[in-house]
Amino acid sequence: MSICYVNGSFEDKSKAMISIQDRGFNFADGVYEVMSFYGTNVINIERHLKRLEKSLEGLKINFPYTNIKSLELILKKIIKLNYLDNGFLYLQITRGSSHRNHLFPKAISPNIVIFTFNVKHDEKLTSNGVNILLSDDIRWGRCDIKSISLLPNVLEKQKAFENNFYESWQKRGDYITEGSTSNAFIVNENNEIQTHPSNNYILGGVTRDTVIQIAKLNKLIVKEEPFNLKELKECNEAFLTSTTAKILPVVKVNNVSVKNGKPGMITNKLIKKYNHFIDCEINESN
Amino acid sequence: MSICYVNGSFEDKSKAMISIQDRGFNFADGVYEVMSFYGTNVINIERHLKRLEKSLEGLKINFPYTNIKSLELILKKIIKLNYLDNGFLYLQITRGSSHRNHLFPKAISPNIVIFTFNVKHDEKLTSNGVNILLSDDIRWGRCDIKSISLLPNVLEKQKAFENNFYESWQKRGDYITEGSTSNAFIVNENNEIQTHPSNNYILGGVTRDTVIQIAKLNKLIVKEEPFNLKELKECNEAFLTSTTAKILPVVKVNNVSVKNGKPGMITNKLIKKYNHFIDCEINESN
Repeated sequence: MSICYVNGSFEDKSKAMISIQDRGFNFADGVYEVMSFYGTNVINIERHLKRLEKSLEGLKINFPYTNIKSLELILKKIIKLNYLDNGFLYLQITRGSSHRNHLFPKAISPNIVIFTFNVKHDEKLTSNGVNILLSDDIRWGRCDIKSISLLPNVLEKQKAFENNFYESWQKRGDYITEGSTSNAFIVNENNEIQTHPSNNYILGGVTRDTVIQIAKLNKLIVKEEPFNLKELKECNEAFLTSTTAKILPVVKVNNVSVKNGKPGMITNKLIKKYNHFIDCEINESN
Repeated sequence: MSICYVNGSFEDKSKAMISIQDRGFNFADGVYEVMSFYGTNVINIERHLKRLEKSLEGLKINFPYTNIKSLELILKKIIKLNYLDNGFLYLQITRGSSHRNHLFPKAISPNIVIFTFNVKHDEKLTSNGVNILLSDDIRWGRCDIKSISLLPNVLEKQKAFENNFYESWQKRGDYITEGSTSNAFIVNENNEIQTHPSNNYILGGVTRDTVIQIAKLNKLIVKEEPFNLKELKECNEAFLTSTTAKILPVVKVNNVSVKNGKPGMITNKLIKKYNHFIDCEINESN
């Protein structure tokens, strides 16, 4: 049995319920975070909770705890109650439950749901790399808010899957923004790491930011500038990042090989360094 | 006590619940309809259910009933159970409940929620008209699907309200698409009724379509072509339509009067004809 948290109580996830008048359910009026954990150590917890606060601010939902520490304690309790060595935490906060009306209701409390889940990590994806579909980015203009308004991402991811791609990278005009569930990077012709800057067209991914930091620490040049289709075609390497996938080499785009169609040296170096970073985070807490 | 319908059972709306793993709750992966009723007669029921089927198709969710008639019977039963003379029906269908993963899960059943609600109709809005805020349309590129991915609409409507406007009309570039909860019309300099055509940038509103039909029946010329800011500034009249608001004169845009700042003759004529249409729909069923 998997234990989840709903508004203060710990429950069987498969039976846990929320009001049909929850504004997340009716309006997608809420935000979420996905975090990985090892032991009871939540990787990049400060960054995730900082982004959570930013997302809540974006929607003018009050942070529902007296302080961040209270939330951290609940996250750790959920991990313990599920007897898990590692996995992922899902945290969703909506504006609350009320009579259906677009306008923000007065005096309601946010609804909070937290549960754990696991993703089978396929090592072959890391060693062989993945094939990416290119699509038009038709999402709204506030992708920087990590909201549960995820229908466009769902449809994109499904389209990629049905066409035998691992993921879809989206483009506005000629420029790649990000994947439907990941951030998009290339190693350009000058061996600089290039990715779309953090603005309203992308979600400032926590793993994205960590990878940029690690790259810089390892004397790699990082350009936070959007790359276009020509630059993608001519790049030396490509990869994607996300909390659940970590770093995955992108070896094909629309079935066409990136360079020799094999994971690149810089990508592999970053994978190694990122795994080392996680090891350090785990050891720090022990 | 208000009675609602959740997946086959009739329940107290204030206590009715849905799984925290519902994909509407996690991903905004669902659609909805709002319908008005008088007696047990649901106005424009065929049009609403036809649009519902179109929305479900857009998301590749199977219609969860053997036929439309079964759904109609449930709608009427809900009305009867609530002892209401008139009001509105809210119907929401999501892809169903499953472990959280962007990809469509296999073999799950849609979740269906239906409830009634009421809106206090303020006659002054019809007689005096309303003031509209203009905003940039930052929504996604599939506004034609009536999905519950409504966060942009919620934020827009709230912004309008906080700035003392009744509603927000959104523009892509120079062209008005539609309101955050309504369709946008002008009566242009040639006394033609003009509104954005039905495409991926707007929701083909049921009341919008009915008003167009009524206008044509009354020998008015209807141009389904987007109008720009200049045309809005120079128009003779403006109005909005929605299922809950019906037709409301727009007498100010961004606090600037439309013509003399009073509801226009053609708008008032359409309001009268639309009310007559509803009377006929009610009488037909009696």
